[in-house]
Amino acid sequence: MEGSSQTPTNEDLASVSKNATKKEAAKQEKLRRRQEQEALAASASSLAVDEEDRLAANYGDVPLKDIQSKRVEDVSRPTKVGALTNALENCSVWIRGRAQTIRAVGKNISFVVLREREFTVQCVVTVQPDTVSRQMVKYVSGLSRESIIDVEGLVSVPSVEIKGTTQQVEVQVRKLYCVTKAVVLPINIEDAARSDAEIEKALQAGEKLVRVNQDTRLNNRSLDLRTPANLGIFRIQSQVGTIFRQFLLSEDFFEIHTPKINPGSSEGGAAVFRLDYKGQPACLAQSPQLHKQMAICGDFGRVFEIGGVFRDEDSHTHRHLCEFTGLDVEMEIYWHYSEVMDIVDRLFVTIFDTLNETCQKELEAVGRQYPFEPLKYLPETLRLTFKEGVQMLKDVGVEVDPMGDLNTEAERKLGQLVLEKYGTEFYILHRYPLAVRPFYTMPCHDNPAYSNSFDVFIRGEEIISGSQRVHVPELLEERAQACGIDLKTISAYLDAFRYAAPPHGGFGAGLERVVMLFCGLNNIRKTSLFPRDPLRLAP
Amino acid sequence: MEGSSQTPTNEDLASVSKNATKKEAAKQEKLRRRQEQEALAASASSLAVDEEDRLAANYGDVPLKDIQSKRVEDVSRPTKVGALTNALENCSVWIRGRAQTIRAVGKNISFVVLREREFTVQCVVTVQPDTVSRQMVKYVSGLSRESIIDVEGLVSVPSVEIKGTTQQVEVQVRKLYCVTKAVVLPINIEDAARSDAEIEKALQAGEKLVRVNQDTRLNNRSLDLRTPANLGIFRIQSQVGTIFRQFLLSEDFFEIHTPKINPGSSEGGAAVFRLDYKGQPACLAQSPQLHKQMAICGDFGRVFEIGGVFRDEDSHTHRHLCEFTGLDVEMEIYWHYSEVMDIVDRLFVTIFDTLNETCQKELEAVGRQYPFEPLKYLPETLRLTFKEGVQMLKDVGVEVDPMGDLNTEAERKLGQLVLEKYGTEFYILHRYPLAVRPFYTMPCHDNPAYSNSFDVFIRGEEIISGSQRVHVPELLEERAQACGIDLKTISAYLDAFRYAAPPHGGFGAGLERVVMLFCGLNNIRKTSLFPRDPLRLAP
Repeated sequence: MEGSSQTPTNEDLASVSKNATKKEAAKQEKLRRRQEQEALAASASSLAVDEEDRLAANYGDVPLKDIQSKRVEDVSRPTKVGALTNALENCSVWIRGRAQTIRAVGKNISFVVLREREFTVQCVVTVQPDTVSRQMVKYVSGLSRESIIDVEGLVSVPSVEIKGTTQQVEVQVRKLYCVTKAVVLPINIEDAARSDAEIEKALQAGEKLVRVNQDTRLNNRSLDLRTPANLGIFRIQSQVGTIFRQFLLSEDFFEIHTPKINPGSSEGGAAVFRLDYKGQPACLAQSPQLHKQMAICGDFGRVFEIGGVFRDEDSHTHRHLCEFTGLDVEMEIYWHYSEVMDIVDRLFVTIFDTLNETCQKELEAVGRQYPFEPLKYLPETLRLTFKEGVQMLKDVGVEVDPMGDLNTEAERKLGQLVLEKYGTEFYILHRYPLAVRPFYTMPCHDNPAYSNSFDVFIRGEEIISGSQRVHVPELLEERAQACGIDLKTISAYLDAFRYAAPPHGGFGAGLERVVMLFCGLNNIRKTSLFPRDPLRLAP
Repeated sequence: MEGSSQTPTNEDLASVSKNATKKEAAKQEKLRRRQEQEALAASASSLAVDEEDRLAANYGDVPLKDIQSKRVEDVSRPTKVGALTNALENCSVWIRGRAQTIRAVGKNISFVVLREREFTVQCVVTVQPDTVSRQMVKYVSGLSRESIIDVEGLVSVPSVEIKGTTQQVEVQVRKLYCVTKAVVLPINIEDAARSDAEIEKALQAGEKLVRVNQDTRLNNRSLDLRTPANLGIFRIQSQVGTIFRQFLLSEDFFEIHTPKINPGSSEGGAAVFRLDYKGQPACLAQSPQLHKQMAICGDFGRVFEIGGVFRDEDSHTHRHLCEFTGLDVEMEIYWHYSEVMDIVDRLFVTIFDTLNETCQKELEAVGRQYPFEPLKYLPETLRLTFKEGVQMLKDVGVEVDPMGDLNTEAERKLGQLVLEKYGTEFYILHRYPLAVRPFYTMPCHDNPAYSNSFDVFIRGEEIISGSQRVHVPELLEERAQACGIDLKTISAYLDAFRYAAPPHGGFGAGLERVVMLFCGLNNIRKTSLFPRDPLRLAP
């Protein structure tokens, strides 16, 4: 529990950055020094104005009591920073947000960029006979970055463009109070929000900007999350879940919640986290597979689940996590696994269409820091058989085992070929060899070496696995045994099929992967709020 | 993993019912014998018609190949049983469902009650020169209960009321195929669907009907789930989640997913499940509390989560589970915890209103088996202080510690008093003594012995806990230490507050409890799909 993922303090920066390069640590150190100097300079630059201030009521720290639910009578709400436009010129407003930067200019003036979510506005604190004292300017200049402040002032519209803020108005401050104070920051939000392109561009102009690496970000996740790109990513993630649910509810599915603590291992295969359950050996669900099928055996007809999935992975890759959010679907079918693929097709096209429609701002925010091309997909999703895929690879000289699985490289290559030939980065590959699929996969009617299964790819990476399931208990047992699974460990599951299971199928996707690949991001840790990987269990 | 929760077979019934009473076991045995006799009688009553049947194509078992995705060309879909009405008289229909009961009458006729979800229809198989042979009647009569069958036939409208089916039409069968066969059942759906009142009524008339007890139900959950009441309960559960999300999304919240595997214990207090995470000690989240607060520190503003919550409970009560689905909310506030209570108020009134509007059928289905009075609640939720609650109890002679917590009995009593005085079974009790709340609870501004916290009650049972949180790191550390929490175990959490946390608050509820109490059910195991309690880890 201790160690790598603690947020650094002044004392233990070195130990924190054990995952970061030394170079990065040096940068951080330099940054901190600069910040401390800035803070020092800010207070020093002010006058030594210690005499009583008759305007003292206009600024200062909000007493904690005031925020301990004392001011119930105060039902007014601040204006949103994002709503500050020319239309409000000369209006008095109250805004609340973070002091992103504070810049003192001489003794009589201080500029504060106030940020609320992804919106920023410049606040100008100038000495004024009836409102702003020199002491107040000093107080403001001494505020620490990221502190939360309440600002009251008049909206003004400057004649020139304001660079570095989203809002094109200023607030001429009359009152300013600090609600919560921040200590010196390990990373600045401006630095964390910078794109690689910006850093390169500055470098070419001879300026060296701070680049915050992944581990430093994740160690200080509560700060890192404040960047516009991250606010965008997690709003998009929320929206994917919303569209997923709305589509399925409208198709007569309903939502279930299956247990995550189970006896045995959920599907045999991959490594599971084990725990002690009241003296019984138990493990965490690698997927809701078995229980969602048991819900179908219970005549639930069409179900979905959004929930935690746990895998004791040893893969240190850009796309594996030890804990992620599963998007799972299971449904009765009449005759064919194409009924499941039809749902996949319409569901994901709806997700992509709706994201492009409703998340434009968020997608732009992500793209500003991590540039990407919008996903290319067809109104009706391309379906290729595994055989056809293997042939396409063969045609360009890539040899793969026609009865084996595709490795990551072959999948990426095939993605490229499909894009060139069909103009889509989203497609379904189906009829996989039976040998490479889980035991519950239904073999093909015409060739038991193949299966009624499919994988779905975005930008050359697998995001969905699905199939028709074996619903006949005798065949299910036979397949489980063939896959080396101890029947005793799945007996409750097998029993559910003895009382007649309807023909059914389903699929599962990972929410973090969907968001990562839709946004063309290079690492799944960017789309997991507090990622868990083989090296990271905190924060 | 073996033992108590396996589905029984003929061999090991005794071991299965170790949780059931002997009486129950005897009933089950009797039931099985009756079923076996019925099956025997059905095949015996038919003619020994072994000669070739020129109408053989009209019935029989569907070959597995046909359901292995062979018949892709067949895009027709069966008519839903729930859609079978007078309007379809004389129409030819195809329906698919389960053979709930099969009753042979002589050699030429057999009645099958076909069930699809909560709908049932009577199918009549009568010997007809061009469609139905005696062999077909024999085949039908020999089907096992709960087998899935395809039926083709003509809709007819009988002149008398049909008892025991939901649909008031019959299907005159021309073709009947068995899609999947069931083995002899440990419980009949009709028995599992019976209300206690029905059983009592029959008993008074001298008839002894089977009562299926809770453990037998849960051991055979995939069968038990097929009852109309259970289909209703889990559709209502899905709808609660949907309304919860829709309301919060419309109020500018968004959905997050926090990690369930964590270092340390999430809140100190209650027992946690421990596991090994790549050599590091870890535990399962008792709630998303710390991480949802860290999301607020990350400027997410307003968030919610629906996800698994894990508690190593030793409570063997009707309302505790070791794993349940948490409904969690966290939000920035400006000044007062009443801002959080306002959301609770409007959110839950919206949930109740919408359930009553949109889930009428489901609520009726639940009520038929488990009768309950609709929840009494006010358009604007009653708020009482803890002190007022204690006084109400005192006034009727119930003495409780004014600085302690209310026990279950006192809560129930207070619920009764509130109902009598204010006419509501849903209310908020706030300003609890600080000593009985978790460390992250904000003390009151005017008296640190009290806290800015609340509990919410339905029908005298607590379903929601919430509060304003401490957002100042120094006070947070002080409170954690006062509650005996080792600061090292929550250091990542504490660090998130050093960079200025906004004033905030939130609350958490349990989905299963909300459904249980809204429907007036007596056991939380009824509203958990596959419950996990101190004695149950399967199925």
